[in-house]
Amino acid sequence: MPNGAQALMQTLVNAGVDVCFTNPGTSEMHFVAALDSAPGMRAVLCLFEGVATGAADGYARMAGKPAATLLHLGCGLGNGLANLHNARKGKVPIVNIVGDHATHHARYDAQLQSDIETVARNVSPGFVRTSRSTPALCRDAVDAVLAANGPPGQVATLILPADVSWGEGGVVESAPHVERPSAASDPVVQAVAEAIRSGGRTAMLLGGHALRESALHSAIRIASHCGVKLFSETFPARIERGAGLPPVERLAYLAEMAALQLKGFDRLVLVDAKAPVSFFAYPDKKSCLSPETCVVLELSSPQEDAAASLRKLAVSSGADNAALSLAPAVRPAAPRGKKLTAEKVCKAVGHLLPHNAILVDEAITSGLMLSKYTAGAPRHDLLTLTGGAIGQGLPNAVGAAIACPDRPVLALIGDGSSMYTIQSLWTIAREDLDVTAIIFNNASYSVLNVELERVGAIEIGPQAKAQLDLSNPVLNFTQIAEGMGVPAVRAMDPEAFTRALERALSTRGPHLIEAIVPPALAGMKLKLLPHILSSLDRMPQPVAHMLIRRLAP
Amino acid sequence: MPNGAQALMQTLVNAGVDVCFTNPGTSEMHFVAALDSAPGMRAVLCLFEGVATGAADGYARMAGKPAATLLHLGCGLGNGLANLHNARKGKVPIVNIVGDHATHHARYDAQLQSDIETVARNVSPGFVRTSRSTPALCRDAVDAVLAANGPPGQVATLILPADVSWGEGGVVESAPHVERPSAASDPVVQAVAEAIRSGGRTAMLLGGHALRESALHSAIRIASHCGVKLFSETFPARIERGAGLPPVERLAYLAEMAALQLKGFDRLVLVDAKAPVSFFAYPDKKSCLSPETCVVLELSSPQEDAAASLRKLAVSSGADNAALSLAPAVRPAAPRGKKLTAEKVCKAVGHLLPHNAILVDEAITSGLMLSKYTAGAPRHDLLTLTGGAIGQGLPNAVGAAIACPDRPVLALIGDGSSMYTIQSLWTIAREDLDVTAIIFNNASYSVLNVELERVGAIEIGPQAKAQLDLSNPVLNFTQIAEGMGVPAVRAMDPEAFTRALERALSTRGPHLIEAIVPPALAGMKLKLLPHILSSLDRMPQPVAHMLIRRLAP
Repeated sequence: MPNGAQALMQTLVNAGVDVCFTNPGTSEMHFVAALDSAPGMRAVLCLFEGVATGAADGYARMAGKPAATLLHLGCGLGNGLANLHNARKGKVPIVNIVGDHATHHARYDAQLQSDIETVARNVSPGFVRTSRSTPALCRDAVDAVLAANGPPGQVATLILPADVSWGEGGVVESAPHVERPSAASDPVVQAVAEAIRSGGRTAMLLGGHALRESALHSAIRIASHCGVKLFSETFPARIERGAGLPPVERLAYLAEMAALQLKGFDRLVLVDAKAPVSFFAYPDKKSCLSPETCVVLELSSPQEDAAASLRKLAVSSGADNAALSLAPAVRPAAPRGKKLTAEKVCKAVGHLLPHNAILVDEAITSGLMLSKYTAGAPRHDLLTLTGGAIGQGLPNAVGAAIACPDRPVLALIGDGSSMYTIQSLWTIAREDLDVTAIIFNNASYSVLNVELERVGAIEIGPQAKAQLDLSNPVLNFTQIAEGMGVPAVRAMDPEAFTRALERALSTRGPHLIEAIVPPALAGMKLKLLPHILSSLDRMPQPVAHMLIRRLAP
Repeated sequence: MPNGAQALMQTLVNAGVDVCFTNPGTSEMHFVAALDSAPGMRAVLCLFEGVATGAADGYARMAGKPAATLLHLGCGLGNGLANLHNARKGKVPIVNIVGDHATHHARYDAQLQSDIETVARNVSPGFVRTSRSTPALCRDAVDAVLAANGPPGQVATLILPADVSWGEGGVVESAPHVERPSAASDPVVQAVAEAIRSGGRTAMLLGGHALRESALHSAIRIASHCGVKLFSETFPARIERGAGLPPVERLAYLAEMAALQLKGFDRLVLVDAKAPVSFFAYPDKKSCLSPETCVVLELSSPQEDAAASLRKLAVSSGADNAALSLAPAVRPAAPRGKKLTAEKVCKAVGHLLPHNAILVDEAITSGLMLSKYTAGAPRHDLLTLTGGAIGQGLPNAVGAAIACPDRPVLALIGDGSSMYTIQSLWTIAREDLDVTAIIFNNASYSVLNVELERVGAIEIGPQAKAQLDLSNPVLNFTQIAEGMGVPAVRAMDPEAFTRALERALSTRGPHLIEAIVPPALAGMKLKLLPHILSSLDRMPQPVAHMLIRRLAP
């Protein structure tokens, strides 16, 4: 009979959880020793827990099923919390295995003893369980996998005391039966269809699984047939886009801009999305972004099948045979000129993006023009920062590359963001992943300069300014990357950047390109931002929309 | 009238909290803007929250008072959790300021919304408070500072909603009255004195504040006068040691060795320390380390004044005029030979340690011989890993250097440990701190190889082995450090290392030395470890004690 850890390993593999992102310590040594007992399990070592959890997030977004993490007690879980938060907000399934002291050791309050469950509840409100006995362990694991799978997907945390892991008498469980989510009910579909038909302007906000190709096909048919405007949530976990796929406008991050996008609509239909709210609160600004007179209807919840619900709505609206209006294949020219800017980097990405790439966007202000320049690039998946906790991009790239070893991964990351989980580079090198990381080195927390203006804290002194400034010393990402085994180059002008990207994309394996750029919004433009935002409402619509496209971080 | 953030800033400074380790986001922008309104406040930017919290820990250990941290919502707190855990276990005071969404924004469940209090409870069981109004904010802050100060010191978490921060009507509070802890009561002191006099062998375990010079003076007098054996807790937050100070033997990390150190004692007197327990649990091994027949008495608790309690006990035992037996000034010779080893690095540190240095030890297995080689070096403070959550060393060095700008800081860090908070190097460079970081690059989680043997998981395959191996690719800390602005060199032999250390210590400012060493316990020696440990008990005492000194990681 296997011990607990061995039985757990086989049960996870049986349940389809066959990748584990690990950062183990002593209390997890039996789990580690059991890795070789289940040949179907792939273990990927990470040097920091935030890498492991962010990799599990990226993996699940692309694999459509959860990976496991292996974390060391409450502290390991804490280190992994920010990226688990991102996964929670993105409704991405993850199975955390958190090692704990042996049950009989807990009462001694040894150094690493802490209340793990209380931390876990922050990211796993739906499933936190401490396994209490070796014979029950695998049933607990199956429950965790089922909870993680959802719908909707969630972070499930299984706490594994060392003695439950090393104990004899583990009982392997077979794959659990997973229920498929159902489509929205007929009355709901009909109500939505009637509302759309009843006149007035309708917008539809697509989130979660409504941003995959088959759901988008139905949505775009409804849009063209019924005159509905489509929006995507601001930060989707995964959206399929590019030439030959239905184009969808994303809601802007800046509340004032999103409010303008939604202005004039009489109703908003939600599909696997929540009603849009401001990312942060600001003095004297409202949190809710849709107009006050706008009626919000939910076609389908995250518990339901978005694609099937949209298909039903298309049929019900008579749109199921409408022509598909798809994004044409258009690429920008290669960027030119002497000075490299964030916009030119995005342009080069659009110019060169390979077919079937996975694009990870954590470029914050620098990624402003990425959507525009890649809209007509070959089809690709885009993964974004679902929960606002920066440090997600590089780990997501690790996980996406492991889920899809035959697809190139491009990760665009801000300099500030990259430093939260820079240890990802080592795992990228170690696993020889086909990841090209582009770091925008603008030597500042650029978005915070924007935010400092927006919160109305205009009078700022040198100490405050210093908190947003990364220029002393300027980070050298080329050296940092090479120190972790990733070949890297620094690009200072558009041609050098384009050449470097071309080279990286033509050679499978890890690459890092450090793009030296000025902050996306600098000087006067930044000072003007609050004024522009507060007067957006009074500008002619085309001018306002142009500004949204040029300015929205 | 100041806004909330401005009043808070001034109140913190009034209460003696005049350093803030920051990693802010949008919800903290008013706090950031207020930094320049209180000229007494020094803000130190960190690129990752684990650096900020570990720096606050190191600062308080050396300054004897708390610093503040500035963290961004639940995710920022999560990223800082591991080093807050270390501070909690070390009873180190810290005041966390955790920004949150504006109170009216919480119900919208925006991207960064999460249950902050639940995370905070893991590290701040004694004080978590969400400030509810601007007028009450500064009273909340004073309560937080008082709670942090203790006794005993603790991590206090004040959650600061953005609107409470930006709101008008802040009321600055003046410095609170801090009660000094009292000494142990007369009856307790007399009972301990009588117990010691009553015959049998007594050991005294010193922890916390009992490891500062004045407490140690009383302790060593009691020891020599009454025949009491002194031990230090295994992982002190801060111990004053070196030539001219009382020497104290530290309890070993490995439970079997600590049990042997404590063998044969009839009683154990605790001074600001808890009864020793095994760091982890192992199959068929007990958690409690003192002999079953040993009577445990507490002279003074962490709530009491350890030095005053020991002084009373010295008087009560007639030891107050006993001669002080102090460590002689003895330094090891410079290390020689062709191959650099962890032991030789420790030897070079003992050979060169400057007067009044602060030594931060997170070298794990590589630091094995550090205590021995620095026992007679000029007086210094030693800071260790109080809570077992690795990634504490480099941030502690940041904080210690800011608390004591005139003292050289030497941080000895394992390669695996260093990567959890490697971003510390940037703050060391930015603040031009007098820190020399020594990274032991042995390309493995060496301690986990030891632990894998100890937990009895002997049969391990290639995947399990790979989880402990950092050799593919080998990290290049010299490149990583230079990428963050810290001048660095790599040393491969003893002479090169000694030269590099000499140079670093003779030039004020940041330095990193990467010591290329083999794992501290390798090959046969490691395989033998479980057998040696299980037979320690049956060996002649001098042999066993020699082995403890040579093998104890």
